[in-house]
Amino acid sequence: MTEAFKFSILSIDGSARLGKLNTAHGKFDTPVFMPVGTLGSVKAMTVDLVEKTGSKIILGNTYHLMLRPGIDVIESLHGLRNFMKWKHPILTDSGGFQVMSLSKLSDISEEGVLFKSHLDGSMHKLTPEKVIKIQRSLDSTISMPLDECPSYPIDKEGAAQSMKLSMRWAKRSRLAYEERSGYGLFGITQGGVHDDLREESANALIDIGFEGYAIGGLAVGEGQDLMFRVTEETVRFLPLEKPRYLMGVGMPLDILGAVKRGIDMFDCVLPTRLGRTGKVFTKYGTINIRNSRHSKDPRPIDESINCDASRNYSRAYLNHLVKSNEILGSILLTWHNISFYQDLMSKIRIAIKDNSLNRFATDFEENWNRGDIEESY
Amino acid sequence: MTEAFKFSILSIDGSARLGKLNTAHGKFDTPVFMPVGTLGSVKAMTVDLVEKTGSKIILGNTYHLMLRPGIDVIESLHGLRNFMKWKHPILTDSGGFQVMSLSKLSDISEEGVLFKSHLDGSMHKLTPEKVIKIQRSLDSTISMPLDECPSYPIDKEGAAQSMKLSMRWAKRSRLAYEERSGYGLFGITQGGVHDDLREESANALIDIGFEGYAIGGLAVGEGQDLMFRVTEETVRFLPLEKPRYLMGVGMPLDILGAVKRGIDMFDCVLPTRLGRTGKVFTKYGTINIRNSRHSKDPRPIDESINCDASRNYSRAYLNHLVKSNEILGSILLTWHNISFYQDLMSKIRIAIKDNSLNRFATDFEENWNRGDIEESY
Repeated sequence: MTEAFKFSILSIDGSARLGKLNTAHGKFDTPVFMPVGTLGSVKAMTVDLVEKTGSKIILGNTYHLMLRPGIDVIESLHGLRNFMKWKHPILTDSGGFQVMSLSKLSDISEEGVLFKSHLDGSMHKLTPEKVIKIQRSLDSTISMPLDECPSYPIDKEGAAQSMKLSMRWAKRSRLAYEERSGYGLFGITQGGVHDDLREESANALIDIGFEGYAIGGLAVGEGQDLMFRVTEETVRFLPLEKPRYLMGVGMPLDILGAVKRGIDMFDCVLPTRLGRTGKVFTKYGTINIRNSRHSKDPRPIDESINCDASRNYSRAYLNHLVKSNEILGSILLTWHNISFYQDLMSKIRIAIKDNSLNRFATDFEENWNRGDIEESY
Repeated sequence: MTEAFKFSILSIDGSARLGKLNTAHGKFDTPVFMPVGTLGSVKAMTVDLVEKTGSKIILGNTYHLMLRPGIDVIESLHGLRNFMKWKHPILTDSGGFQVMSLSKLSDISEEGVLFKSHLDGSMHKLTPEKVIKIQRSLDSTISMPLDECPSYPIDKEGAAQSMKLSMRWAKRSRLAYEERSGYGLFGITQGGVHDDLREESANALIDIGFEGYAIGGLAVGEGQDLMFRVTEETVRFLPLEKPRYLMGVGMPLDILGAVKRGIDMFDCVLPTRLGRTGKVFTKYGTINIRNSRHSKDPRPIDESINCDASRNYSRAYLNHLVKSNEILGSILLTWHNISFYQDLMSKIRIAIKDNSLNRFATDFEENWNRGDIEESY
């Protein structure tokens, strides 16, 4: 029998929550970080390596997958999880953000959005109903409804109009969504940086009813202070008993700050994208392994992380791989970066359980700001 | 106590031999295929994945490593095996072939070869003694002496002069080589496609004495027939009890034909290089997975290979990854291609043991020439 879609809160520490989300495809603890698997692959990683990082759920991009390889191909191969051989839950976004940020032209109407592919200029239409249908074909564990993601900054009147449209789309999405045990549909709050619009948006979504609530339209250039403030204000209006997902966030300190404000779920391209450019996360901040100061350094990136890429290879070797454009450089640095994120999430969960999140966050931030360890060899 | 460098012949079938080579860093069965790890990485593979393919020894390129990251870096990190975390034996080539094929300019004298780096135009000198010293610094299990690799075709007089120089260099290499238990130095026969020169070269090397004998200067455009003939003629003059290595060969049918002529060791860039361009080995020949006829094919590449990449992923998924330039495409296809080669070597070894190599070779060739299986979904 399929596991029901069920969120349980196991422990709280201030506004932060330690939770567990059961789904049809497996369960995971929250706060959780979801690596991004844009095109049916967490870039530069095999699914075995993704598993080794401790990742329990990944994100797929509806927009990218509908253009390549096409939803029909993935559907005929029994969904995205089977296509890419990922055994655990998948969350897919609605494509709305990519339509507005990547496509050459997009035309938004009440019905939906018409856009030009960034790959070949072909025209495509997404409606709330079609986006739900696509995610059904992908067999996504968690689906997201189509929303409008206006560019930042936007005036309040524009933000309000856009949010109201997204709420009407959310309603249509819920109606189009086929209920299945262990699967869920999340609502996405919008309203820019305006607290009253966020409140209105949250209330509209709660009236419709969703299995979880996301905060969209942040991490688009508003800065950390404003992002934290809007998150805090929005969370106030979200139901306590449902998972909360801050979309597209973020750097480690962003995640820590958002967890303290009650967020349970995160996704971000940074650990994968930066891994492919030689940028590496350490507890003392990021380093660029391509820098020549690492070229003879026998030390691993970070021995405290339980990951081969973090503790088994010298910085000298990684420096060499990246400078030589060896694919293995991208593999090892991505592997390490995701492991770093999952290690952070694990420590955050332990701290919440121990009621010591504030102390953990202070210590983490202090180390992070201290800068990378000096070479001592 | 370190294992001695010792080659044992366990079984013969015609001229083909099933053997075992013990080294300081582990033992392996022959005929053996060595994946190429040019720059301290088998391209697009982690060492764990290389191990999973059944590979027991890999090859490193002296020329590439001396230019990047530099021998001093690798030496300070305790040799190439420790640098790249490969636990098994490594064979390093002498750099001679790359100097002559890659560098912008090379000037050969009795002393050695002066050349310009293909990367930055800097000048470097290699002598037989320096090449041995470099491979000592790399801690190579099997070292190769500097030899001259003339371009093909070359007139007989030129081939003779070049071969004689390589034999003088071989002598100097042997003298410079520091004996260590479990390590070995191979001699390399030269002499182009001229049987009498190959005989003279083999005799010169035997007089010096090596732990194994390689056939160099083939697979440079002479064609399979001539390559087989020269191999057969050269092997006649090589000692029965030492391993024989045909450098840079080759495609599956080249390897099969050379095994039948008494060769024990092979290396070739094809499974890795072709894997990065979407070209895939199957028992029915090679296919280009990028071809649109694979775009909806649910079948794996080759279920008969004991490798996740070969049997777990649909051709449709691999086609998608390659067309989308996903790094995972290179990873999975390289993983499969090396596994295909190791599966072939394993079957060859079993056939020699069963005294059925000729039948195996006939069947393999028939399948190979038949072409890829039709789609039937």
